[in-house]
Amino acid sequence: MYRSSATYLKSLSKAKFKEFLDSFDTVLTDCDGVLWIDQDALPGSPQVMNKFRELGKQIYYVTNNSTKIREDFLNKANNLGFKATKDEIQCTSFLAADYLKNLGFKKKVYLIASEGLAKEMELAGIDHLPIGKDEMNTDLGTYLSTLRQDPNVGAVVIGFDEHFNYCKMIKAANYLNNPECLFIATNTDERYPSKTDIVLPGSGSIVRAVETCAERQAVILGKPSSYIAESLIKRGLNPARTLMIGDRCNTDILLGTRNGFQTLLVLSGITKLNEVEAWKVSNKPEELELVPDLYVDKLGDLIEYFDAC
Amino acid sequence: MYRSSATYLKSLSKAKFKEFLDSFDTVLTDCDGVLWIDQDALPGSPQVMNKFRELGKQIYYVTNNSTKIREDFLNKANNLGFKATKDEIQCTSFLAADYLKNLGFKKKVYLIASEGLAKEMELAGIDHLPIGKDEMNTDLGTYLSTLRQDPNVGAVVIGFDEHFNYCKMIKAANYLNNPECLFIATNTDERYPSKTDIVLPGSGSIVRAVETCAERQAVILGKPSSYIAESLIKRGLNPARTLMIGDRCNTDILLGTRNGFQTLLVLSGITKLNEVEAWKVSNKPEELELVPDLYVDKLGDLIEYFDAC
Repeated sequence: MYRSSATYLKSLSKAKFKEFLDSFDTVLTDCDGVLWIDQDALPGSPQVMNKFRELGKQIYYVTNNSTKIREDFLNKANNLGFKATKDEIQCTSFLAADYLKNLGFKKKVYLIASEGLAKEMELAGIDHLPIGKDEMNTDLGTYLSTLRQDPNVGAVVIGFDEHFNYCKMIKAANYLNNPECLFIATNTDERYPSKTDIVLPGSGSIVRAVETCAERQAVILGKPSSYIAESLIKRGLNPARTLMIGDRCNTDILLGTRNGFQTLLVLSGITKLNEVEAWKVSNKPEELELVPDLYVDKLGDLIEYFDAC
Repeated sequence: MYRSSATYLKSLSKAKFKEFLDSFDTVLTDCDGVLWIDQDALPGSPQVMNKFRELGKQIYYVTNNSTKIREDFLNKANNLGFKATKDEIQCTSFLAADYLKNLGFKKKVYLIASEGLAKEMELAGIDHLPIGKDEMNTDLGTYLSTLRQDPNVGAVVIGFDEHFNYCKMIKAANYLNNPECLFIATNTDERYPSKTDIVLPGSGSIVRAVETCAERQAVILGKPSSYIAESLIKRGLNPARTLMIGDRCNTDILLGTRNGFQTLLVLSGITKLNEVEAWKVSNKPEELELVPDLYVDKLGDLIEYFDAC
């Protein structure tokens, strides 16, 4: 209805809001920056999401985070007041395991990842090599001459890994030198969101390192890759009647634009309004794709409209 | 004379070879794959290089390798029978230190590098933080809360570093978050040349990781970046009378093509003749740039021509 117009949702009349509300059956929402920041719910977000549910909307919580399993996200959501079920949680650790399971994958996975991704593999019955520290305790020449790769590895899966290092790059590049070895990454976010001024490198930095030495590109499962949209469409989602809510235009809104969803940007996270205004008047197609249909300061601001509907 | 024609040098008459030989005053040559492989000189290469010198050609040994200092390369060259002087060695460890010295850089350097790069900094009188192992011995949260960056760091320089890891990514990304901090990389080679089947990730993989989380691009000093050409042109090199010899088209030959040098590919290293033949008939400008003017199986094959000149 408001295609890429960046319309301020609070400028809508109650009647227009009702029309908007009736225009979708499914809500996909990002988590960090939309629903919560770290351990605190953003004011009004639980009420709005629960209201969508009461109105019969199908909800999916879609996060690029790969460090936890679905149950962890579910517990966090429930503790912060969001009604949710496990099936509604679409985190990239789960998506990676589900992707391999759907392929009938029977070999072992070499993981550059945190516990969440490892546990989702286990829950899906997929074998993997150990995660965690893996350091070079000799000189490089000796290390290479004693390197033993596991012949049963059939996939390399990359998520966030604070123990990422050159040894892991060597192992991944050598597994991936076999063109039959699958190459999957959870997401390409350059940085992690952080409350402090410290820059925290995201999974994307790790993925780019391995893609470079492997001379191959990974299949990306997280936003803005369309994998998640395609997977939900297979389960019956109708793009024309879907709303995507996010705080980051180059992942959340882009996923929506590319898949024909309506998009709602909340300004409680990463993207700022002046960025949206600049993209809106840009001549570059790749910047126009980032412009949301609607925006609002924070998701909780919608609550006053529901009261009147 | 043979611009991007990939002419087989052995198909030239002696008269045409003499004409070719008279067409350049300066020879730039790659090392690994052209002059030697690991610890062994390629047959005839020392004789050909020494003959160029006898004929009065100015010679530069141009290598992307950043792990050694100029003296190490010089010793290796001399031991393998190549006459050379230190000034003729243009390795990226030296280029990085020289680059900073020419800027009058007075601050400290954060290095992701091996000993060669650190030593060249010291030889140029430039302070740097220690290289080597730097591991995370606590959980990530504690690590970040106790992270202390050195306020005197004014440049991040990246070369090859077998101890590269996530801690180093964090430190580099945070120094580079200051837009005044310089960002320099020796080269972007995806892989190291290797005698075995083992894939050895090159500096390029490390550079791409840091560029991604820093959300900035490094100044690249090695081939095919034109920095080395520009630096030699300032010292009097005439591109129209320069020959570039290499075994890898996407670094050596590309450097030559982009800077107006004649180019000679030797087939004793990375690039194969069938690749050249495919590029020659390509419609893509970026592939046509990779086609050398001349090629020969190995540099040593030129010796028979000299005898007749």
